[in-house]
Order: sequence, then C-alpha cells, then structure tokens
Amino acid sequence: MSPDGGPPPAGATYGVDIGGTKVLGVALGPDGDVVGEARVPTPTGSRAIVGSHVAVAVAEVVTQLDAALGIEAAPVGVGAPGMVDRTGRLCFAPNLPQAHGVDWHELVGGRLPGRRVVIENDANFAVLAEHRLGSARGHDDVVMVTLGTGIGGGIVIDGKVQVGSAGFAGEIGHMVVDPNGPPCPCGRSGCWERFASGAGLGLQAREAALAGQLDEVVRHAGGDAESVRGEHVSAAAAAGDPAARQVIEAVGSWIGFGLANLACVLDPSCFVLGGGVVLAGDLLVDAARATFTDLVEGGRRRPLAAIVPAAFGERSGAVGAALGARLGGLG
Amino acid sequence: MSPDGGPPPAGATYGVDIGGTKVLGVALGPDGDVVGEARVPTPTGSRAIVGSHVAVAVAEVVTQLDAALGIEAAPVGVGAPGMVDRTGRLCFAPNLPQAHGVDWHELVGGRLPGRRVVIENDANFAVLAEHRLGSARGHDDVVMVTLGTGIGGGIVIDGKVQVGSAGFAGEIGHMVVDPNGPPCPCGRSGCWERFASGAGLGLQAREAALAGQLDEVVRHAGGDAESVRGEHVSAAAAAGDPAARQVIEAVGSWIGFGLANLACVLDPSCFVLGGGVVLAGDLLVDAARATFTDLVEGGRRRPLAAIVPAAFGERSGAVGAALGARLGGLG
Repeated sequence: MSPDGGPPPAGATYGVDIGGTKVLGVALGPDGDVVGEARVPTPTGSRAIVGSHVAVAVAEVVTQLDAALGIEAAPVGVGAPGMVDRTGRLCFAPNLPQAHGVDWHELVGGRLPGRRVVIENDANFAVLAEHRLGSARGHDDVVMVTLGTGIGGGIVIDGKVQVGSAGFAGEIGHMVVDPNGPPCPCGRSGCWERFASGAGLGLQAREAALAGQLDEVVRHAGGDAESVRGEHVSAAAAAGDPAARQVIEAVGSWIGFGLANLACVLDPSCFVLGGGVVLAGDLLVDAARATFTDLVEGGRRRPLAAIVPAAFGERSGAVGAALGARLGGLG
Repeated sequence: MSPDGGPPPAGATYGVDIGGTKVLGVALGPDGDVVGEARVPTPTGSRAIVGSHVAVAVAEVVTQLDAALGIEAAPVGVGAPGMVDRTGRLCFAPNLPQAHGVDWHELVGGRLPGRRVVIENDANFAVLAEHRLGSARGHDDVVMVTLGTGIGGGIVIDGKVQVGSAGFAGEIGHMVVDPNGPPCPCGRSGCWERFASGAGLGLQAREAALAGQLDEVVRHAGGDAESVRGEHVSAAAAAGDPAARQVIEAVGSWIGFGLANLACVLDPSCFVLGGGVVLAGDLLVDAARATFTDLVEGGRRRPLAAIVPAAFGERSGAVGAALGARLGGLG
C-alpha cells in the first residue's frame, strides 16, 4: 500500500521486518545492494507487542540507519506478521491475539512523519525480495515459505506478488494437513505449521526427548526434556547425532508434504524456503525435496519445482520491505 | 492455447466438455447465450477412453451442432480432465491412467481440420465461464470447485484464469487433508476428493449403508448396500430421509473444510461449486458454508468469501470452452 505516489527514490530505502524476537532493518541501495543494517529486540511481555511499543522499536531501527548512513527521510517498508489487510491493519494473527485490530500504518506511520511508509505482510515482502533479487530470479510462479515460529507464505503468480481479495493470501501455515493433529493457536487442529515450523520442530524434539531418544541433546539443553528447543536439535544434528538427524528429517518431510499440497493448487516452478528453521541446512531441505518428489501428484511425469533456500536468509523480509518502499508497494 | 491467431469470430463458437459419462457440447452466440447443445456418451471400456475414441466422440458432437445450427467451421474449445499441459497433452490423470501422454490437441485437432481448436483442463474453462458470464461475475479472485467423480479446480486471480508454471494449477482435489485417510487413485492417501467428491459421497453412503443407517436408500438401490450410489442418497435426502441428510451434510462439511484450506492459500472473494454433486442442493451448500465459516482462519474477523453454486450447472465447462474458443484461450 502506498499512501502517496511520486517517482522512485534516487537514494537508499529502508526495510524493517517485525519478527518474534527482533525488529530487523536494512538499508537498500538503488542497485539492490544492502548498504546498512540495524536491529533491536522485539518488545516482550504479555501485551507489549501491541502497537505503540513495536512502533517505537521500528522508529528506533530507522533512526539507527539514518545515523549510520548519514541520511534522512528515506522511504520505509515495514513487514508485519499475520493477516495484514490492504490498509495496513492487523486483522488476525494466531501468535499475536492481543494485537488484533492494530492499525500498523497509523501507529508506525505516525512515528515516521514525512516519509513514504509502505506496510505489508512480512512474507509478501520476503517473496518480493527473493523473486526480484534472490533465489527465485527468473521464475514467474513462486511460493515463498517462511519457516519461523509459525509458517508464513508469499505467492508470485505470472511475475507478480499476489495478496488475494482482502490481502490475506499466503496464510499457508494454516492449511489443515491432519484433522487429528495437535491444536493450533488459530483455533483449529492439525495446521501445517504445527508439524513443519520452528514450533513443529520443537514439539517433535520434545516428544523424542521424552521418549528417551535425545539424551545427548537433553544434556545440552540443561537436563530437562521439556527445555529442548529446535536450535538444540539442529546443532546436535549438524554434529552427527542420529536421533537429532531423524527429528530434522521428519520436519523436512512434513515441509515436503505441504509443498506437494501447494503444488497441486498453484503449480509454481520454484519454492523458496526461508526463516530460521532453514538454518538446519541440507539435511532438512533434502528431506523436504525427497518427500515432495514422492508425494506430488504426477511426480514422475511433471516438471518438478525447484526447492531452494532463501538467498537473503533471515533478511528476506527486510530486504523485500526496502524494495517495497522503493516500488511504493509490491510492484 | 491458441494454435492460430486472428480476430474473434463473428458467429457462434462451440465448447465441448469431455466428462466421465458424457461428451457435452454447447454452441455459444457472440452475446454469450447458449444457442445449441449436443451430447454423446463417453466411450467406455478399459482402454476405450484413450485418445482416438474420445476424439471421434468430440467430432460427433461438433457435427451435431453444425447440423442443428446450419453452420460450419465454428471454432471449438475442448475441456479435458486431468493435468493437461500448455500444449494440450495429458500429463497425468488419476482416474484415466491409461490415457497418460495422450496429445489431445493432435488427436482432436486432427478430427476437426480447418477449425481453430483450443484445449484446456476442463475446470479452467469452467471458471472462465462462471467468472465472465456466471455466478462469479464481478469477483476478481475466484476458485471454482467442480465436484464430479473427483474434484477439479479453476483459479482466477486478479481477473485472470491462472494455470501455473506448467499448466497444472487447480488440481485441488489432491490436496491431502488427512494422511490417514483412504487411498486415492493418484497414489497417495487422504486426498480431499476422497471425502468431498461424488466418489467421497458414494464411499460415505456405502459406509452408512453397511452400518445399517440407510435401509430405505438401500431398498431403492436394489437391496444391496454395496450398490448405493451418491444419487440414491441425494434423492433420499431431498425426500427428507434423516440418515441420508446426515451423509449429505457430512460431505458438505468436508467441502467446507477444503474451502477453508484454499482460503488460507488464495483468499478468493468467491467460491463457485459446480459438478454433479451440487445437485444435492442447499443442504450440501449450506453445510459447506457453515463448516467454512467455522474453520477459516480469522473467520470472525475477515470478510467471508461467497460460496455459490455454478450458474451453468453441469454446463460450466462446455460454456467456458466455447468462450475459450472465442477468446483463443483463457483470456
């Protein structure tokens, strides 16, 4: 959404990604190179994520970038989690119920007077970055899957980021893949993100730990199976722990399962995997690819979509937001 | 796909829909009114569906329309089931394994020399008809769900029918909605069409019959629970049989379940339900709507997509094919 118009800016633009643990900003030069970076922790506490605290954090990141680059009034793109409508209002976010109804445009825009501010769902910006500048360059039909605490999605069709009738397309983490699966904060059960996200990795890791299969990992986590987190398992798998590798492969397989469903609906030529979970590396991506190939309809007779990690890693959303600030929206 | 170009035809165009039981043709006038109709049974037998027999049936329908309208050489659109690629070749069709690799364009085009022939997946044509002339007029983002033996899908995004990178978008019946569900001819288990299509209706009806819940329906089907078909249940439900109504509602609920998943991915403003299963009427559509409203992410906070029956009923695919013949493709 671009509240004002005008020609594309000649200098740098900023992109800020509001994440679960940090608010990450980048400055993007006119040639698409990252020329600055800043971050602050996401405000925590039961209701602190709501609106104004986050807006302050976004403004702080912008001030840091201004100081580092010695410029001012650069346009700012802001990527926000959840179902963000076409006016920048947060309609619904399973992991941020206390923020329902927050008007990001008003709150963040109010802290950044005199600037062009563009607000979008974070994964929509992430796919913009990967499509224009990253791993999905050259593909006209792309699905970006951001594997963080939950799963976000961005969709490019026919070369254009598509957001759906109300702005809520790409909420792919809430496809139900097993009606008998675990309950989801969204109110349903068996959503894809219960199995394939960071939360899914943690859940499966703790199950394996409680079953006595991850003793080494549990020791690293402080001795309590309930304390095992995804990053402990990723580290143990990278070090060769067979049980940890099994957990990572199981999560990768669930990722591939969902990609096969998405291929049925959208038939992209490229899936980009982003978010922190992808830091688990080749083991995870290879497992996703193997299950996808096995499960996708007509798998032995159709061109198989590429499945690639995000070129910008954890920065896809911020880079896309800066690109969105340049374009005045999603292009 | 349009093998030749040229201006839109001034007179009627034909659309032919290759279905499981019949090959249905319509003639469409320049104003979008149906001015003729013809049908022949789909050739049956273990391999008779393959290629040339079906091409003969399509040509026969075209000849009937020529004779009825007293014209010749009208352009023809042909809607074919399964994963039809951008050149008109059938890549994969779970319910037609013997036809894999058939080149519809060559076979059908060869039988209709001197005509513009356009080939597409049947549901892509169906959504074109409903979007331009039918129940989804005025909506820019539409998903058409054809509930026949299986489930087909057609997708309109931003006002345009989208077919994906290789032409295989909209294969929505093969989203897996329950990994522990019944096996599907596509090779996986728990595909949506196992629960929500005509086959799903039949399956659930026979289960209810074998459990002794559909005695009246079984009598109508000839006394054998294994002989109960979807149409027997629909008729009994329409007559008020409570057990039959329960089966229809269960199928409707599974339809709504899949629509909620599709809304997460695509966020359309309108779902159009077509195909024979919709003849079960309001009971089915109301159940779909109720489950959709209950399950869709953010359901109480988002604009709810319309869920409407196809304006052209069983003719959506044929009308869309005739429209495609006029447009030289999907527009």
